[in-house]
Amino acid sequence: MEKSEVSRQQRKHPPLLAMDHLTHLDGDQRDCIEACTTCHEICLSMATTHSLRLGGKHVEQDHFRLMMDCAEICATSANFMLRDSPLHRLTCGVCAEVCSRCADDCAAVGEMHECVEACRACAHSCRAMAA
Amino acid sequence: MEKSEVSRQQRKHPPLLAMDHLTHLDGDQRDCIEACTTCHEICLSMATTHSLRLGGKHVEQDHFRLMMDCAEICATSANFMLRDSPLHRLTCGVCAEVCSRCADDCAAVGEMHECVEACRACAHSCRAMAA
Amino acid sequence: MEKSEVSRQQRKHPPLLAMDHLTHLDGDQRDCIEACTTCHEICLSMATTHSLRLGGKHVEQDHFRLMMDCAEICATSANFMLRDSPLHRLTCGVCAEVCSRCADDCAAVGEMHECVEACRACAHSCRAMAA
Amino acid sequence: MEKSEVSRQQRKHPPLLAMDHLTHLDGDQRDCIEACTTCHEICLSMATTHSLRLGGKHVEQDHFRLMMDCAEICATSANFMLRDSPLHRLTCGVCAEVCSRCADDCAAVGEMHECVEACRACAHSCRAMAA
Repeated sequence: MEKSEVSRQQRKHPPLLAMDHLTHLDGDQRDCIEACTTCHEICLSMATTHSLRLGGKHVEQDHFRLMMDCAEICATSANFMLRDSPLHRLTCGVCAEVCSRCADDCAAVGEMHECVEACRACAHSCRAMAA
Repeated sequence: MEKSEVSRQQRKHPPLLAMDHLTHLDGDQRDCIEACTTCHEICLSMATTHSLRLGGKHVEQDHFRLMMDCAEICATSANFMLRDSPLHRLTCGVCAEVCSRCADDCAAVGEMHECVEACRACAHSCRAMAA
Repeated sequence: MEKSEVSRQQRKHPPLLAMDHLTHLDGDQRDCIEACTTCHEICLSMATTHSLRLGGKHVEQDHFRLMMDCAEICATSANFMLRDSPLHRLTCGVCAEVCSRCADDCAAVGEMHECVEACRACAHSCRAMAA
Repeated sequence: MEKSEVSRQQRKHPPLLAMDHLTHLDGDQRDCIEACTTCHEICLSMATTHSLRLGGKHVEQDHFRLMMDCAEICATSANFMLRDSPLHRLTCGVCAEVCSRCADDCAAVGEMHECVEACRACAHSCRAMAA
């Protein structure tokens, strides 16, 4: 049993599951918040660990910057929905476009499967919210 | 079957579960990211929906501002950990302090059970990460 | 001579003026970054000091939430331009729309002159960048 | 006369100068907000333009990540002060530490003079605010 498993079982406050909360929001909105949050986490984390470690094409300016753009607009779109703002359609529209470009770019660079998948899922969800 | 349940079953890209990704990070770090993200979401969302709707003591400056401070430092701490930054101990230390104060304040204001719980869980997790 | 004036004269590191840096970016882009940053600062600061202290119509949900939406999209748009991202046109387009609505709403609420002015200036600048 | 100068003179809404607004805040606090904002802008912008273009040691993981940590904690600290939050002492304390490390690291990497200067000024200002 690895260390993190032990601590997970022993601690008093188990992690709140992502879909347990925010029940005051519409279900589709909660799903889109989750897709945006996941995409934000994966883009930011992969860029600053995986991409910086691998170097080369992974830190080429246009690619790396797009990953940072994607991470940021995902967080912003999630926040608009968390505020239950009617303007979330605007941010979700931009988010769908940025995520779609980031997915294509990550697929072209390669070795970014997790990021491609998260970006496609988020683009899909945001496109529906923006409609 | 409610509308959101239908759409959840029908769509092609199911949401990625929160703990499915970020496997390149340490387990305790992933748990703390999740606690921070959940606390960010609940504080931001409750403040701008529940608190603004109820008014009165819920929009008293010190209380409302503390919820915004808490939402922001949780997002910042999560991002430091997503970058796998060694400096996450510093942000987690501040996050534990802010979350602990926010939990106490929300408990005093009342009708903020979900927020109290998320803040206590995040304070607990961040305190361990900062140690 | 007030306290802050004294400290400003005595300290060793004078503040860098806003337009002294970022000379690697295009002049119009620097101006728009400044308009976004100023609008972010004024919306966030007035909402959490002025509006929360006055209460009443100043903390009505639709108005207060719009100020937070505005503060956030301004920061996000500024960051896209700071990264010199070609996608800044998308965020500037949304920013212009949100700022324009926030200016009108603040004008209707009243006692928000500074915010109205900052939002109009930012909407004007972002609209030009998005074109 | 270059293009950006012309547009600056012709436009109807001149940029609000950074120190013209936020007069409801204490002068030292306004100065620290400006130092944090400037440092955020320079770190984020230099990392995603200058550093990614130069490559090599400029995109080495520890260095690049530290610049992102620095950009983010500066924005967070500025926001705590913009909210006039009493907890800004906590975020300013962390910001001073991160900026100080970033200044040293940028000095060691070289070709980062503007960043070194902004980080040192921000560390100095935040240290005083945290005291």
